[in-house]
Amino acid sequence: MDQRDKRSHDMAKLPIGIFDSGIGGLTVLKTLYNAFPAESFIYVGDLGRSPYGSKAADTVQRYALQITDFLLHQGVKMIVIACNTASAVAGNAVRHRAHPIPVIEVVGCGAKMALEMLPEELSEDARIGILGTDTTVKSEVYVKRINELALKTGLKLPDIQQQACPLFVPLVEEGWWQGELSDKIAERYLHSMKSFEPHVVILGCTHFPLLSGPISRALPEGTVLTDCAPAVVREVRTILDDRGWHAAERTDVAESNRGKTVFYCSDTGDTFRRQAERFLDMTIEFVHHVDLEMYEDGEGLECFPQPI
Amino acid sequence: MDQRDKRSHDMAKLPIGIFDSGIGGLTVLKTLYNAFPAESFIYVGDLGRSPYGSKAADTVQRYALQITDFLLHQGVKMIVIACNTASAVAGNAVRHRAHPIPVIEVVGCGAKMALEMLPEELSEDARIGILGTDTTVKSEVYVKRINELALKTGLKLPDIQQQACPLFVPLVEEGWWQGELSDKIAERYLHSMKSFEPHVVILGCTHFPLLSGPISRALPEGTVLTDCAPAVVREVRTILDDRGWHAAERTDVAESNRGKTVFYCSDTGDTFRRQAERFLDMTIEFVHHVDLEMYEDGEGLECFPQPI
Repeated sequence: MDQRDKRSHDMAKLPIGIFDSGIGGLTVLKTLYNAFPAESFIYVGDLGRSPYGSKAADTVQRYALQITDFLLHQGVKMIVIACNTASAVAGNAVRHRAHPIPVIEVVGCGAKMALEMLPEELSEDARIGILGTDTTVKSEVYVKRINELALKTGLKLPDIQQQACPLFVPLVEEGWWQGELSDKIAERYLHSMKSFEPHVVILGCTHFPLLSGPISRALPEGTVLTDCAPAVVREVRTILDDRGWHAAERTDVAESNRGKTVFYCSDTGDTFRRQAERFLDMTIEFVHHVDLEMYEDGEGLECFPQPI
Repeated sequence: MDQRDKRSHDMAKLPIGIFDSGIGGLTVLKTLYNAFPAESFIYVGDLGRSPYGSKAADTVQRYALQITDFLLHQGVKMIVIACNTASAVAGNAVRHRAHPIPVIEVVGCGAKMALEMLPEELSEDARIGILGTDTTVKSEVYVKRINELALKTGLKLPDIQQQACPLFVPLVEEGWWQGELSDKIAERYLHSMKSFEPHVVILGCTHFPLLSGPISRALPEGTVLTDCAPAVVREVRTILDDRGWHAAERTDVAESNRGKTVFYCSDTGDTFRRQAERFLDMTIEFVHHVDLEMYEDGEGLECFPQPI
């Protein structure tokens, strides 16, 4: 085994780090977990300080960097920011801090996906809707990303309309995923989006896919809803392929073996475990408590293995 | 001026500290501010980590103690916990940490008020309803307090029914205080409370008084809603009277002069200021940012003046 193979082999052994302000990112974890059964994951839910969506950009950035430092300290081969708000306001900072560990964030994936989902026959006047939290919408990150991508691929810039839907988050956490009430709230938020008649609507918050029923009903028939999780899977696969970092390539693990998933939460108590079991539809034996404030200003940065 | 008068004079000069997980406690501040125009206040809103209502008891206790240390460090003559969740799970810890500075918390005030509001002719079979966040309801703190108070005053223990209404908080923060949607959500939460036919219902979260319209409509006619703010005013007045700590007694301040109110927030940005202006119906020039994590484990405890 040459030096490059050796390093690649070492990296393959490491888990994938994934984080969110709380439980929403579990929808992304679930998709990754099903797509890559041999991989191990470390999931960090910052439930002690959630939600991020209503907090100032630099507060969220500080929290995201603490989590990044924690994950680097644990040793991960990749970081997935499974929180739209954190992607929106801290994506670049996390990428800079984690370098050379690759960072994937849901906003970039979602923006790319939305453009790909536009009807093929549509040569111009594409209309894209974006639903998110207050902070995500204010950051205009989806608008910027979509425009950048459209320019790069020579597409005409689409018409974009944004709508903040902050109440969707507690609605999902309350478990009211269906029924009259969620329909009413969706109608109230999406009144003007409906008149806009978007071709594609980005569910720009990891909680929102759980409300896709009420959201669909509040929009014109045939509106395509895009959820970023499948796009994240694609990006993760590309990195694992390109670098030879698939866990299944570890000589000591049979492909049929499931990787391990470890959960860390900044809140104590049982809330995270109970909600996570509902989101993931599986039993979770144990959730570790983590004091993220300990990971301020790049502590623990020396310990993570250097990728090739 | 003898030594005791001198100390009392020094204490009178200090502001009253008041804190909440975010903006809900501003409803208490507003009532205090109107009742005691000569007093100065320091308000701390932990918006960077709000809401508390869904977080574990020991997480909330840790946050509440950090804020207590911050307030003691600033120098205050009294601390008002204007957050039901923090009162419920951290009241005793804050009292212990702040001693001998007096601590007033909304739960004790609300429980007392509810018993006083029961119809006089009612000799037994009193029914009290309690609405709160998840954490407040789980802590059963109102139930315990009401029973303790009832026992002390020789009343028969009332029948008590609790209901967690977590969605009320973001509903208020979204500004949807009236209208069909808030009525629907109130109906959904209060269905079983309605059949219980309570004489008095405690609004056990500082956000809830802003939804008193929808809450009233979802309950049987004639149900008395109690809000703890007036009871807090009474407790504050008693302490100021007993100890001679009224700010107006400062020789250097005319009674007509308004005290100052200073705002600290753990989130940055403009959200707190904007929401606070709406809650208080006044202009706020400046909100200081405070990093509460700095105040871990009793830092700054030496600096506060000893009361008499």
